[in-house]
Order: sequence, then structure tokens, then C-alpha cells
Amino acid sequence: MSQSEFEIIQRYFVDSGLGFARTGVVLGIGDDAALLQLPPNRLLAISMDTLLAGVHFPATAEPALIARRALAVNLSDLAAMAATPLCFTLGLVLPESNGAWLQGFSEGLLDLARKYECPLVGGDTTHGELSITIQVQGTVDADRVLRRDGAEVGDRIYVSGFLGDGAIALASLGLDSHLGRNFALNKSQPSASCFEYFKQAYYQPKPRLELAQACASIMSSGIDISDGLYGDLKHIVTASGKGAQLRVNLFPYSDAAIACMSVDNRMQAALYGGDDYELCFTVPPKSCQALEQAALALNTKVTCIGEVIRGSEIICIDASGSELPVSTKSYDHFGNH
Amino acid sequence: MSQSEFEIIQRYFVDSGLGFARTGVVLGIGDDAALLQLPPNRLLAISMDTLLAGVHFPATAEPALIARRALAVNLSDLAAMAATPLCFTLGLVLPESNGAWLQGFSEGLLDLARKYECPLVGGDTTHGELSITIQVQGTVDADRVLRRDGAEVGDRIYVSGFLGDGAIALASLGLDSHLGRNFALNKSQPSASCFEYFKQAYYQPKPRLELAQACASIMSSGIDISDGLYGDLKHIVTASGKGAQLRVNLFPYSDAAIACMSVDNRMQAALYGGDDYELCFTVPPKSCQALEQAALALNTKVTCIGEVIRGSEIICIDASGSELPVSTKSYDHFGNH
Repeated sequence: MSQSEFEIIQRYFVDSGLGFARTGVVLGIGDDAALLQLPPNRLLAISMDTLLAGVHFPATAEPALIARRALAVNLSDLAAMAATPLCFTLGLVLPESNGAWLQGFSEGLLDLARKYECPLVGGDTTHGELSITIQVQGTVDADRVLRRDGAEVGDRIYVSGFLGDGAIALASLGLDSHLGRNFALNKSQPSASCFEYFKQAYYQPKPRLELAQACASIMSSGIDISDGLYGDLKHIVTASGKGAQLRVNLFPYSDAAIACMSVDNRMQAALYGGDDYELCFTVPPKSCQALEQAALALNTKVTCIGEVIRGSEIICIDASGSELPVSTKSYDHFGNH
Repeated sequence: MSQSEFEIIQRYFVDSGLGFARTGVVLGIGDDAALLQLPPNRLLAISMDTLLAGVHFPATAEPALIARRALAVNLSDLAAMAATPLCFTLGLVLPESNGAWLQGFSEGLLDLARKYECPLVGGDTTHGELSITIQVQGTVDADRVLRRDGAEVGDRIYVSGFLGDGAIALASLGLDSHLGRNFALNKSQPSASCFEYFKQAYYQPKPRLELAQACASIMSSGIDISDGLYGDLKHIVTASGKGAQLRVNLFPYSDAAIACMSVDNRMQAALYGGDDYELCFTVPPKSCQALEQAALALNTKVTCIGEVIRGSEIICIDASGSELPVSTKSYDHFGNH
């Protein structure tokens, strides 16, 4: 089958319902640009991420899962600013106009777009090796933005959810990671339930939008963990001109991670693995109780894993208080893995 | 040489000055999202275009020219909405971290970004086959938006600049077009001056921002010509529920186009070639004089080439009034060229 670019856009991105109406979207797909109107006193937050087949997902993965992952990792950037999703644009490079693939891809997008009230408003479809570029637009009150540069000495460092699942998922799904040969499962195959858990973790990360929006005013800084806790927390401490002390024995791990990975490999996954799309954020001590209560009300796990300190380094200590050597193995697209 | 993703972003996209300050950009490169503030009563216009090496430009072209073309074609979409550029984001897929290439690419972007006060505010850099996705953000008064759907019967159809240069440039630069084997230069090689002219036309199209902003209130509809006049005007007539009559003998051609191409091939280039990035727009008869005076004041060539009529088709007539057969060969990324 062969469909024209316009037929593809019409069928899978317009007729599919992906361009549903939403307050603030004045004009969606169909002109030279989309038009947005912001609520008074709100800022627009924009973030773009590109996912390449064979790098950020296997080319043969189910198209609905690829779509969900692509939109979710972008929404995670809005969560990291405490913004509310408004709409997204899609730059899709496709090797062929495969109707079944496009149908699945479109359905995966629609699922998540509806859930977060974030319609598709435009983009571009071209012919080449499969890649997906999404830009998300969100809105945020100027005085409730969650930035990287507000951490103060004494603030507690928190993470949402579990750490390391993103990297352990790669190993479970049989995909390459950059963590080297020793980073492997305890057994050659994960159990069926672990496999399902990690498939979900990898393809359907949960953007922590509710937590960020509810608690932005008591968080002093925040970022989403896409490249590994060490590298992403480093952005916070660098932007804030501070250091950090992490207690690795407090890191939260999923049951599946505990079942599949050695203690040391779990820590490697948490610190250097990436793809977790959890929030890492700092909270002044006086607000920690309020934070934990708000998280509980949202049924969102949060764990205090350390503290902002003077200096510029991230120090990792174990349960006995001994300092652990650190690596700088965060994911880097142009590094030597 | 090998540079990390963060080094690339820092050196070529931050230290280069591409993220220069601009009113409305509250936060640029360096957090999870950029933050924009709109002037009161302005809408935000957003548009995304992907350019792939080997499809939208030769992979071996000078990086500064690739950069200029990539940003210019996106700015052209803002012109087609009569919006004022605010900032852009860049999704860059690079085969290697080549310093000289990145330097040239960054300089090309900076040139145009400065000219149109449109700084880089974010994006993503990944490792793969060369492609460039740019999203431009612009602002526009709600009551001065240039849309596709406002054409009325009797309105005059205008184009800015010259038609066909984009497609003739492909032939001059030795690149493939979709216009078939008969679409060729008069001679096997263009003259040196024609070659330079078309190189400029292809890599440095002029987004018609000033014309659109100055005249949006007297234009009843508009679009930029990226896929060929026929296909793009078709979007206007379809959105407006009208037809159009084009007088092909009125089409404006550059001296270089006249020197290099037969009459018939020039018309093919104009109607079906694409890549011109001129504006096609409609103007009520009572406002034509004002339009032409405003264009003159901006030193921008505009030419009336036809009229909006009842119906839903585009009819082409020659100097004698005879109707010409039309094709539907507008550029389509998934079509059979």
C-alpha cells in the first residue's frame, strides 16, 4: 500500500481524533502553523525530544508502545518544570507508509494524549529511517516553575517512584545498554512477571505531572531522570552552585529490580542507567512533611535519598557512612559506550 | 575528535551566542524546558519542519547553508501566518561529532537567527543519520492572523518574488527533482552566475515575514509555497471552499530561470516544483492598490497571477484564454516520483 503524505496526516493524525479540541488551542492541524492562546499570567513551557529507532527503542517494537514512550518522555520534561500539558507537535520520519503500523502508532499516541489532555496540533511527516521528534507545549504559573537552580544547602533530595528500572528494563528486554558487560540479569531470562513489569517501565514511563504540579511551590529544584540519577542530579547541583550527598542504601528499588539484579548492578542502574523518567527534586527540611503528605494523597511513592551540601560534587555514601567511588557513566549519545 | 552531547550543546549552541536574549524568552537552553511569555492579546504560532540529508538537502552541502535553509523554511511558515518570530528549537541528528561541521552549522543558524531576532531556546542532539527538525515559535495578533480559509470569489491571487526558482535550482545544482526526465536545463551546465543565483535561491530562501506582517490585514488568505503553487493554492481554495483561475502568462520568473529553462519547464517548475518559499495570498480587489504600494515600500516584488472563482478546482489559462491541462504533481514525500 502507498499513501500520500496528506492522506497519512488526514487518516492517522486528524481522523483518528488526535487533534481533539482543547482550551488554549485556537487552531490545530491544517494551516501553516498552529495557534495557541495562553491563560493570563501563565508562561509557556516547551521541550523537544528525538527518539531514533535502534537507539531509543527497537525498530521492531509495537508501534503503540513506541508512540507511548515517545510522548511520555516528552511529558516527563513538562513534569520536571511543573507545567500542565497543552499540546504537542510531531516530526515523524517513516521508512514506508505502512497502514497497520501507523494505526497502532496513532492509537498509542491518542491514549496518552487523551489522558493528559494534550492534543496533536501539527508537525511534519517525511520519508526516511524511523525517528520520532516530539515537542510538548505546557503552561505554568511564573511563580510556580520548577527549575534546576534553586537547591539550598540542607535541602533534602527526593526521588519519585523507583530507581534503575529503565536500565534494568533494557537488560530484561534484551536491548543494549551503556553500562558494560557486567551489567546483566541474575538469570539469563527474567521471569514472565518481571519481563512484563520492565516492558511497562520501558515503554510506558509515568510522567510525574501531578506530583510536580501539586508540590512545585515547596520543591526548591527539580529535574526528570533521563540520563541516570548521578548525571541529572549533577545538573541540579551545578545550576544551584551546591554539592550533594546521596545515601545509596536508601535508593528505592522495585520488587522486580530486586529479583533480577545484584545489589551492585541495581546501584549502577540507578546512578548511571537513565530512562527512569522519575523526578529528582529538593525540598527544604521544613516542607518535607507537607511533601510526603501530598505525595501520599496522590498515591505517588517518594523517597528521601540524600541532602544538598556545600561544594560542587556528588558524594555517595553507603549504610556504614563510607564514601563510594563514583563514575561518570551517565548516558551520552556521543560518548564511547 | 569526539565530543559529548553536552559539550556539543554548550560549545556550538550556547557559547556560540545562538541562545541570545530576547524579550518574551524567560528561560532558554539549560533546563528541562524553555519558558516563554507572550505579549498580552498575542497568540503563539508554532510550526515544525524536518529536513533529511539526501532528501531535503545534499548531505555534503556546506553546513552553514544547510542550517540557513533549515531555519528559513521554518520561518517561511511563520510568514505564512503573518507571525513575528520569537524563538526556535532544534532536534539535530548527527552521524558524528565533527567540530568543523558543527561550527559552520552553528554560524549559519546564528546569522539568520540574529537577522530575525529568533534565538535558539532548546532541543535535542542525538546520534544517527543527519536530519534537522526545527520548530519555530512566533507571535501574532488574533485579529491579524493570515489563514488559508478566507479567500472570497473575486479576490485577486498574488505571489511574492519569483516562481519556479526552487525546482530549477535542483536541476542547476545537479539534484534530483520529482518533475521527471524532461525537466532539465537548456544546456547541460548553467552559467556561473545562474549557478550562484540558484544556489542562493535553494539554500537561502527569503521568508516573507515583513510583507506578511505589513499586509496581513488586507490579505484574505495566504500560504507559503513549499510544494508548488498548484498544490499550495489548492490548500487555500479547499479551505476556503472556492476555486481559482490562474493566468500562467503572468507568472513571474527570474532572469536566471528564463535563461536556463524552456517556457514549458518554467511553468512546470512554478506549478508543481515546490521549494520556492514565496507567499501565495489573496487580496480583495478594493485593497490591491494598497497591497502593491505596501510591497513597493518594502522593496518586495508581488505579482497578481489570477483570481478566486466559484467552484473547487484550479483552472490554468494561457495568454489566449485557452485552458491548459493540469497535473497533480505537487511534491509528496510518499508519492511515486
